[in-house]
Amino acid sequence: MAELEGNLLVAQSGGPTAVINASLAGVIAEAGRHECIGEIYGGANGILGVLAEDLIDINDEKARVIAGLPHTPAAALGTCRYKIDFKKKPEQAARDMDRLFEVFQAHDIRYFIYLGGNDSQDTSLKIHEQALKRGSQLRVIGVPKTIDNDLPHTDNCPGYGSVIKFNATTVMEIGLDVGSMATDDGACCLVEVMGRRAGWIAAGTVLAKQGRAANPPHIILLPEVAFDEEKFLAKVKETIATLKYCIVVVGEGLRNAAGEEVGADRKRLDAFGHPVLAGAAERLQELVQNKLAIKARSVMLSYAQRAAAHCASRTDADNAFACGEAAVKAAVNGRSGQMVKIERLTQPDGSVKWSAGLQPLADIANVERLIPRDWVAEDGFLPNDKFVEYARPLIEGEVKIPTEGGLPKYVALEKSKVEKKLAAFTRG
Amino acid sequence: MAELEGNLLVAQSGGPTAVINASLAGVIAEAGRHECIGEIYGGANGILGVLAEDLIDINDEKARVIAGLPHTPAAALGTCRYKIDFKKKPEQAARDMDRLFEVFQAHDIRYFIYLGGNDSQDTSLKIHEQALKRGSQLRVIGVPKTIDNDLPHTDNCPGYGSVIKFNATTVMEIGLDVGSMATDDGACCLVEVMGRRAGWIAAGTVLAKQGRAANPPHIILLPEVAFDEEKFLAKVKETIATLKYCIVVVGEGLRNAAGEEVGADRKRLDAFGHPVLAGAAERLQELVQNKLAIKARSVMLSYAQRAAAHCASRTDADNAFACGEAAVKAAVNGRSGQMVKIERLTQPDGSVKWSAGLQPLADIANVERLIPRDWVAEDGFLPNDKFVEYARPLIEGEVKIPTEGGLPKYVALEKSKVEKKLAAFTRG
Repeated sequence: MAELEGNLLVAQSGGPTAVINASLAGVIAEAGRHECIGEIYGGANGILGVLAEDLIDINDEKARVIAGLPHTPAAALGTCRYKIDFKKKPEQAARDMDRLFEVFQAHDIRYFIYLGGNDSQDTSLKIHEQALKRGSQLRVIGVPKTIDNDLPHTDNCPGYGSVIKFNATTVMEIGLDVGSMATDDGACCLVEVMGRRAGWIAAGTVLAKQGRAANPPHIILLPEVAFDEEKFLAKVKETIATLKYCIVVVGEGLRNAAGEEVGADRKRLDAFGHPVLAGAAERLQELVQNKLAIKARSVMLSYAQRAAAHCASRTDADNAFACGEAAVKAAVNGRSGQMVKIERLTQPDGSVKWSAGLQPLADIANVERLIPRDWVAEDGFLPNDKFVEYARPLIEGEVKIPTEGGLPKYVALEKSKVEKKLAAFTRG
Repeated sequence: MAELEGNLLVAQSGGPTAVINASLAGVIAEAGRHECIGEIYGGANGILGVLAEDLIDINDEKARVIAGLPHTPAAALGTCRYKIDFKKKPEQAARDMDRLFEVFQAHDIRYFIYLGGNDSQDTSLKIHEQALKRGSQLRVIGVPKTIDNDLPHTDNCPGYGSVIKFNATTVMEIGLDVGSMATDDGACCLVEVMGRRAGWIAAGTVLAKQGRAANPPHIILLPEVAFDEEKFLAKVKETIATLKYCIVVVGEGLRNAAGEEVGADRKRLDAFGHPVLAGAAERLQELVQNKLAIKARSVMLSYAQRAAAHCASRTDADNAFACGEAAVKAAVNGRSGQMVKIERLTQPDGSVKWSAGLQPLADIANVERLIPRDWVAEDGFLPNDKFVEYARPLIEGEVKIPTEGGLPKYVALEKSKVEKKLAAFTRG
């Protein structure tokens, strides 16, 4: 296939992770190896920046800053949550698409690499389909990115290994803390983690047990398993009777058998009579306190978990970088409409090697991968050995972070803007 | 002074920290250097274990485990929150005191080292006073330990440097995350940290700014400064207008001008009509959402912050160890009724050296040190350079933690028990 000469545009989308900038660094490194790629542009705040013709000139950045990207958390280019929705907003979607192709043409963009989760892979697919329809030579490749780990076909999603490494470390530490305070009165601590409808993040904290039943966490509540209040309280009681304390990890999207989120508590009203939206951990904390009369405390890690680059997984960061490189290689080799996927190669000695493959975006977009039921113990309270075997290799290795005055030395892009060539565009 | 021959008893009290076991390791190391000290015993769960004659034989522990203590969070001996209260419960206090001295005598304990915060230093003082009254040769030394940093006379309290290092790192990371997602709609994130009535922990996150006004955190709410809702909301609005996002750190004990805790919301009722106790961050999140119509999210680090040994400060861990050593040295040298304090020696080049001194327990017990008002900016929203100069040296250096399978390798004591010599004791 003849080489396609032109510029490359890379953008980041959705919730940030500890390693999404490692993927960006992989894209930049690989793009620099191909003469057919002229300029490397970044979309400021994902597709929103492309619509606004708000492009960052990455070749203008200092080498020192580019070198710091792989260990810097959050989205260095900025990110967004914007969906081009042909179903619900067909007119706007059509206008958006026209605008994107105007921007691509104005800036001679022939390569578009989009880093993101389910929604973003859908955006990439739509752009790819439009390119075919419009006879454009644009090549579109998606790079997986989501702490939720819910993309299909890839062994895992960059960002996931790091979030479970930090969360498992934190659960170990909280477990030591609460365990050391536990006296005959008993103590319970509820740790709420992210993951929306998928329990991958919650399940990952099982690694803190290191195979020992008495180690925390003692209960992990997954959104995939309907919450049963009575069984849960019985399990907490039993655990405290044995160990004097109980560490519970709960996925934010926990639901009961009726499919209602446990975190949304309709029985509590604010001063204006509206139901109060409490977190799942807080709701369970009240349950444990009120029904078992046991002192309970909750921890809401929230953004801290996905941004914790100071505790990132080397395996995850390396895979994230490799995915960025693979995306550019694939595009240069003439591929389009694909997402890079991570493949696991288990060696005869049990160690794991990783490689990057491709999967059509059409197989990925809007498909959600949940934890298989046979990866969870029968009582639903802990992932089993199948899950542990899957997750353990993902947290291996530490990322060495330079420090200054005792704090991590993260970098920020200068973000010098590419000169605009088009009239302003008003969305919506 | 003639050498006092006998056994040493060390115990840990109050909320655990990332480095309280470093102090324990310092006690054990120094005790091993003195022939006058025979056995080294640990009280299981602080003074409660001493009352129960529940003593741990530390010389029975493996060297490998002792070597791992300095980097292992939480209280390896177990801890408690138990106050010998002569004012409110004089009879029980008298009985407790008799029992303690029975246990000391039964096990030939001549050295008692107690690691803890305000309440625990009070317990040590009471035991010292009783020793004098009873003509006992027992020597009692307190070792400071509290993430709250609210003990007087010591430059800082072991545990504090580590908690603010982790929190400042986390606030930097959350700031990058939220900043990278911020679009014209604006975003606010509220991070609640510990510290009770003292704002030292909240104030410590100012180090994340690294001297740059635009860096997070943008607002720090200290319990020492009365919360003014209007001024707060105006400051959030102003920050978002400039930066598109705003990171707020709030100390859990934040109070309004009437002295009421912001976290205790009496206007919200549960299903039974009782007021709901919400966290301060959550309350402020509602304020920002309802009054400014800005998307807000809260983070409750809770126990995760004080147990985060994976991000401990080398300076703090070294000081904690040195305090443990100094306690034993002082006791062997005939001192009693003293607390070890940390002294800061600022060198001509601006670097800081630390040494250990002593202060009478009578000057320490039940005195609470708060942040001086002239260490906080006039508008009350950020600590100033005086605070930064104080706090910066406390987070310097990293503790190297061995890992296994990608997780920290923490240790646990075997806790083999010393044979009991007394009849069982029933408290209360």
